Amino acid sequence: MKYILIIGAGKSSSFLIKYLLKKSDEENLKLIIGDISTDYANKLINNHKNAETIVLDVFNKKQREENIKKAAIVISMLPARFHIDVAKDCIKFKKHMVTASYISNDMKKLDKEAKENGLIFMNEIGLDPGIDHMSAMQIIDRIRDNNAKMLLFESFCGGLVAPESDTNLWNYKFTWNPRNVVLAGQGGAAMFIQEGTYKYIPYHKLFRRTEFLTINGSGKFEAYANRDSLKYRNVYGLDDIPTMYRGTIRKVGFSRAWNIFVQLGMTDDSYTIENSENMSYRDFVNLFLAYSPSDSVELKLRSYLKIDQDDVMWEKLIELDIFNHKKKIGIKNATPAQALQKILSDSWTLKEDDKDMIVMQHLFGYEIDGEKRQIESSLVVYGENQTYTAMSKTVGLPVAIAALKILRGEIKTPGVQLPISKEVYEPILKELEGYGIKFIEKKVPYLGYNPNTVVG
Amino acid sequence: MKYILIIGAGKSSSFLIKYLLKKSDEENLKLIIGDISTDYANKLINNHKNAETIVLDVFNKKQREENIKKAAIVISMLPARFHIDVAKDCIKFKKHMVTASYISNDMKKLDKEAKENGLIFMNEIGLDPGIDHMSAMQIIDRIRDNNAKMLLFESFCGGLVAPESDTNLWNYKFTWNPRNVVLAGQGGAAMFIQEGTYKYIPYHKLFRRTEFLTINGSGKFEAYANRDSLKYRNVYGLDDIPTMYRGTIRKVGFSRAWNIFVQLGMTDDSYTIENSENMSYRDFVNLFLAYSPSDSVELKLRSYLKIDQDDVMWEKLIELDIFNHKKKIGIKNATPAQALQKILSDSWTLKEDDKDMIVMQHLFGYEIDGEKRQIESSLVVYGENQTYTAMSKTVGLPVAIAALKILRGEIKTPGVQLPISKEVYEPILKELEGYGIKFIEKKVPYLGYNPNTVVG
Repeated sequence: MKYILIIGAGKSSSFLIKYLLKKSDEENLKLIIGDISTDYANKLINNHKNAETIVLDVFNKKQREENIKKAAIVISMLPARFHIDVAKDCIKFKKHMVTASYISNDMKKLDKEAKENGLIFMNEIGLDPGIDHMSAMQIIDRIRDNNAKMLLFESFCGGLVAPESDTNLWNYKFTWNPRNVVLAGQGGAAMFIQEGTYKYIPYHKLFRRTEFLTINGSGKFEAYANRDSLKYRNVYGLDDIPTMYRGTIRKVGFSRAWNIFVQLGMTDDSYTIENSENMSYRDFVNLFLAYSPSDSVELKLRSYLKIDQDDVMWEKLIELDIFNHKKKIGIKNATPAQALQKILSDSWTLKEDDKDMIVMQHLFGYEIDGEKRQIESSLVVYGENQTYTAMSKTVGLPVAIAALKILRGEIKTPGVQLPISKEVYEPILKELEGYGIKFIEKKVPYLGYNPNTVVG
Repeated sequence: MKYILIIGAGKSSSFLIKYLLKKSDEENLKLIIGDISTDYANKLINNHKNAETIVLDVFNKKQREENIKKAAIVISMLPARFHIDVAKDCIKFKKHMVTASYISNDMKKLDKEAKENGLIFMNEIGLDPGIDHMSAMQIIDRIRDNNAKMLLFESFCGGLVAPESDTNLWNYKFTWNPRNVVLAGQGGAAMFIQEGTYKYIPYHKLFRRTEFLTINGSGKFEAYANRDSLKYRNVYGLDDIPTMYRGTIRKVGFSRAWNIFVQLGMTDDSYTIENSENMSYRDFVNLFLAYSPSDSVELKLRSYLKIDQDDVMWEKLIELDIFNHKKKIGIKNATPAQALQKILSDSWTLKEDDKDMIVMQHLFGYEIDGEKRQIESSLVVYGENQTYTAMSKTVGLPVAIAALKILRGEIKTPGVQLPISKEVYEPILKELEGYGIKFIEKKVPYLGYNPNTVVG
């Protein structure tokens, strides 16, 4: 039997485990699932004979090494910063490794050793990063194989609530790590290039500079720019492309309202608030407004951010109950971001029968035989329930498929890598289609940005 | 003869050197002035018999040690990050030390060794920090000595152009390190407390939350909050004070216009711009605006930031010639902040006969015998010319006076310290008055912030 060690069995491991268990008899697999707490993993494997859970502390070197030694391949579903110790053990014991995380600098440094030992360290093979890379490269390679020149690449992705669960004014709930949602866009200006012109957006303007997009049958969405789109020119071999933009999808109107929190300073995670534990939501809001005790918090906020009283943004704030003077933050030494997350969690936590949704869209502009053309490729995936979510499906299935193909020797090229080669993306995208993860491709007129270049 | 080693002879050393040379005969002093370049120092000492300049590289350990060994006291006027090597040598060779910089954590760690060796490491004894500490503590101590309770402390300071040199729409020129002006306010939210209510202002709102102040005879000013006012509660022994605010003074209207640069993202120093060297001012502005090549940069900016065409802010931008398509940034791999500094320097560099001005104001609110009172204490200092500036006077004289008083044994308490004890501030403030650095004190009605508490 071939042992697959899965380290970290969180929310995004349900489809991963389900897939591998389904294949376990024919492929002769045994899953060892290690986590600090095995409750969720036990629920997922449901006494399956080819799976076993173990309490595993990734910082316990001896225990980590023992388990990695026994495995044929290691899948790390830990937070990205914890991969590196596992990766070093994988070099030591000559094991392949798969993660859904961005390649860190430390991980990149293992490339030479991985290659020397014939080991495949496949990273960025979840949803975003993951399916975005694979689906983009498939079409980019096809365009280039036809001797066409890439002019534009734009890519958007978002995790949202499914339409039937979309029950609040924000059209948003936490379907993924809430902390990442609150901190989204921080850490530096967003950078991209449009028709050869570099553009930089500071964080405090990010949510006012959205682009709109329409996804077949799912309606209109908006997207705010991801932090660094420029580096993907190199990753995708598009160094000279004049337009490169990557963004995060929300329902229309979300960003304009979210901007209220950004403007107030409520998303700041760099300092702690005095006396946060017993602070009311109302007092929390007041921290960011002028001292003027005879005026109401509501009026101060409206005046400060120039919000009309009949603006739907205002209703969105009211819906969050953010001016409540009884509800407490309840977190000691909270940062503003932590306090805001607490308030949002009251309203944005998924209800038991809520379902999630993943949307992704790529635009490819290119020139062939002197003619400009554009392809639009879109993906919509719905979750089944709160265990088998669209997020878990789109993150976990590519990881599982890649792991199995590495084990079977179908993915062969060693080294620290992401899934941008045909050898990797072709068979994985094909298999994902069988699970309903299928892009719809359309030819559309080339639009670009410059009105003078727009042709019918 | 007693050797005084001055390391770093920049713009703020003119009055420092002038003062010590004037005292050199009667006090039997010899000044050794070390800098990478001695041109400016040579000009300042003008062949005075009691002074000598040396080319000194502070990173050259041998040379540094040799010179420190010979000195009776060391004055470091280097940028703050370079003090620590000098300070460690001063411990080694048992020398007193004076700086005008904030006490760094590394400096603080030397406190025990300094005390054990009977050494005085006097820091924060320039203008701000320096004169602000001394003048504030003098009044705070007097109020407390009268058994009154401190209710409010607000302190404002700014380096500006003198009225006769105030010739542009911004009412501002660079009278100090331009880089610090461009980066002012960055690195975290501004924090203060007003009548027991904590307030936090994110950087991108800092310049829209100004307070106004009036200085005897000099008119109305505005101030934006300094980064962390809260820590001064502890420094000044005012842990329970309900109002503590520190701010930076500008002429009225400056901050509202400066906010344009903040909103655009032009003050960001965390990334470099592609192709900055040959970029025109106009293209630099366009980096931060939407891609829409058929619209003018001017209209895009006005629309984005909602600036009316007859708003004086617009005239301020025009005055800077920021939309010029011929003038080049001319700096390789510039950050936005560096590019902006270049553009501002065209307009804001002092002309040969321009003079500068220092303004400072403290407000002290207190309660005595059940009655609330307020003291307003203000300082205005004018520069004489571009060598003998108000900035150099207010930074350099307290440093020089403190150094001499340490040498004469009049300041006795050893350790790493700032000038908040009576032993230090009383004689220094008294001597500064002789040089025209004199606060004007007024009794004013206690205002506070709460309209209900306003009496008369």
